[in-house]
Amino acid sequence: MKQSQLFTKTRKEAPADEQSLNAQLLVRAGFVHKEMAGVYAYLPLGIRVLEKIKKIIREEMDAVGGKELIMTSMQRKELWERTDRWDDENVDVWFKSALKNGADIGFAWSHEEPITDMMKNYIQSYKDLPVFVYQFQTKLRNELRAKSGIMRGREFVMKDLYSYCIDEQQHKSFYNSVIEAYLRVFERVELGDHTFLTFASGGAFTQFSHEFQTITEAGEDIVYLDRKKKLAINSEVLTDEVLNQLNVKREDLEEIKTSEVGNIFNFGTKKCEQLGLSFINEEGKEQFVHLGSYGIGITRLMGVIVEHFADERGMVWPVSVAPFDVHLISLCKDEAEKKQADELYEKLQTNGIDILYDDRDLRAGEKFADSDLIGIPKRIIISSKTLAENSVEVKMRDEEESVLVKIEDILRK
Amino acid sequence: MKQSQLFTKTRKEAPADEQSLNAQLLVRAGFVHKEMAGVYAYLPLGIRVLEKIKKIIREEMDAVGGKELIMTSMQRKELWERTDRWDDENVDVWFKSALKNGADIGFAWSHEEPITDMMKNYIQSYKDLPVFVYQFQTKLRNELRAKSGIMRGREFVMKDLYSYCIDEQQHKSFYNSVIEAYLRVFERVELGDHTFLTFASGGAFTQFSHEFQTITEAGEDIVYLDRKKKLAINSEVLTDEVLNQLNVKREDLEEIKTSEVGNIFNFGTKKCEQLGLSFINEEGKEQFVHLGSYGIGITRLMGVIVEHFADERGMVWPVSVAPFDVHLISLCKDEAEKKQADELYEKLQTNGIDILYDDRDLRAGEKFADSDLIGIPKRIIISSKTLAENSVEVKMRDEEESVLVKIEDILRK
Repeated sequence: MKQSQLFTKTRKEAPADEQSLNAQLLVRAGFVHKEMAGVYAYLPLGIRVLEKIKKIIREEMDAVGGKELIMTSMQRKELWERTDRWDDENVDVWFKSALKNGADIGFAWSHEEPITDMMKNYIQSYKDLPVFVYQFQTKLRNELRAKSGIMRGREFVMKDLYSYCIDEQQHKSFYNSVIEAYLRVFERVELGDHTFLTFASGGAFTQFSHEFQTITEAGEDIVYLDRKKKLAINSEVLTDEVLNQLNVKREDLEEIKTSEVGNIFNFGTKKCEQLGLSFINEEGKEQFVHLGSYGIGITRLMGVIVEHFADERGMVWPVSVAPFDVHLISLCKDEAEKKQADELYEKLQTNGIDILYDDRDLRAGEKFADSDLIGIPKRIIISSKTLAENSVEVKMRDEEESVLVKIEDILRK
Repeated sequence: MKQSQLFTKTRKEAPADEQSLNAQLLVRAGFVHKEMAGVYAYLPLGIRVLEKIKKIIREEMDAVGGKELIMTSMQRKELWERTDRWDDENVDVWFKSALKNGADIGFAWSHEEPITDMMKNYIQSYKDLPVFVYQFQTKLRNELRAKSGIMRGREFVMKDLYSYCIDEQQHKSFYNSVIEAYLRVFERVELGDHTFLTFASGGAFTQFSHEFQTITEAGEDIVYLDRKKKLAINSEVLTDEVLNQLNVKREDLEEIKTSEVGNIFNFGTKKCEQLGLSFINEEGKEQFVHLGSYGIGITRLMGVIVEHFADERGMVWPVSVAPFDVHLISLCKDEAEKKQADELYEKLQTNGIDILYDDRDLRAGEKFADSDLIGIPKRIIISSKTLAENSVEVKMRDEEESVLVKIEDILRK
């Protein structure tokens, strides 16, 4: 994409109404636009990052057998009443409205209820199980406060996966495969070393649920981390009994600020009992289905990535989720040189490299500052000086040194 | 995808609460699930069709210079008050709710206001123009009635594009390029011969707006079509004056039922005046920006495609938007044969062909009925009989005759 055709502009100053680093940088660089607190539009640079994150997660969810679908935002009151999650006293994040005929509706903040209710159409026998489905869905939550930029939204994108299993054993096996898949996701976005499987409180059916917590000063959570054992414990389950059980010593724990980028939860058979999702087992008897629920906050994860890698000059995207592979910056002045820059752009693009091409008439300093702010991992500079040596200058965003590379060798690099 | 792993099941009977053919077939075949009237979830087969339609439209919007972004569903009251489109008396399809601090919010049924308001951050000079942006967005509209399946939703997916131009001339040139792009879209989904540019009423700034109307008995619109001239007229502008102007004779017009799959509209400078989007022109004077708005109903288009191509046995997808390229149906019984079917599936998949593989243990008749209902354009049958000749049977969904093709030749076919 030619930067001259990208309508967004960078800003030198952070917007006064943004307290969080991720929102300040994302707004300044033109990745997002704030509609209201906790409600952000994703502009051309931002949507590219989101789609790259989604692609990684989609691949990992497909690999464990997930089937993609997309549920609806609009929700029926009577469905959520059956599980006691309609009343504002029980769930305080609903946005509600009404149809013209007066029927109450809500806008989905989660999807266990409608997916489980729908599955009654498709699950009748043990032969129909297991079923694993997932979606990328915009969730709406009426949060009291929203000051963490895209890390806590009133409108945000989530990947949620649901598993329907015959029994605890089948459930556990899938649950563990999702833990592995999630760890691969965080590895692929280069947060692997900073994201920890965290033991949190379970529910009626299971002692623990599991969170994936990434270390960040911008986080809203505090967990207790055993770095050596690579696990963390949420304060709500931090008891001597649990420490014993996990074979962790209190003195090895660090109190640390984190953001919850993922969580997985075992509902047991309770939700399916409430909603009437049962099947006939091999012995011909009726049994309730085991439900598991597995979330990753897509937009939150993007915010955590920004916070984690940013430096004083701007964002630094990991290669796997960068909006473009390469930022090609032309400092060429005369027409012949500009033509060579254009040709390089075409050539790289033809070879499947995704490029932001700064073809604007601006001073070098402004271009470099913009490039640092936007944070594309690899920068290629083409100028009179480099062309004099039939070369371009290549520099990684997170390194200081650049190298000259012959234009004819650039594709190999 | 192995059909044994697809959790959806087909139904023989249409659901009692669906009046429209598109919803009956899509529900029966497991493409969609009805959450409430006009509100449908898209299941694995359905989401594949949606994504293919979006891909075609994305390519055509990119080709005219559109930049993709995604705005928000949540909307600020004060913004829409400025254009007199907040009050229920002026716009009767709003779903509204409130933040915890009491502030009224609405859920977007359109996006001219927020995009135009946002553009004040990015458009200041004539050098910043033109700007073309588009999104695929879930719109919410509180429709009184929703009986046309996915052709009129309370929650539905729309592609909307917005153009910001210096003047009428720049606007017109882009407007015309979008007309061409839209015609290519409808051509690519094989509705080209049945979709007509339609003259409808304009507004303060222009005599006409334009609709794209597809002939279908399921449509909710009526237009007057001149087949030879390949244009249609909406009744609201059907006057002698207009007929003269368009060089159309009343006696050449057919009254015909259609569905509006797209529309394009010239707002002139009015919306930008109301919202304060201006720029400094080459003479250093302030001028208001020209706004155009261009929609295609993605889910509606999918419904129209179903209605248009369906026959008495089920759906018939055009190749370009089919959920899979090939439906591979195995009638193999013994293990050695099943292994050959599995190998063929792997081989076709490895070669980038998207396949639904019916590996289920069902009678041939049931498999064929399901396959006809689902409507994948090309069917490959592998059985003892075909394997005896080292062949498979290939049949198009919309043809009666099948041909035997040697397995070694299948990739070339």
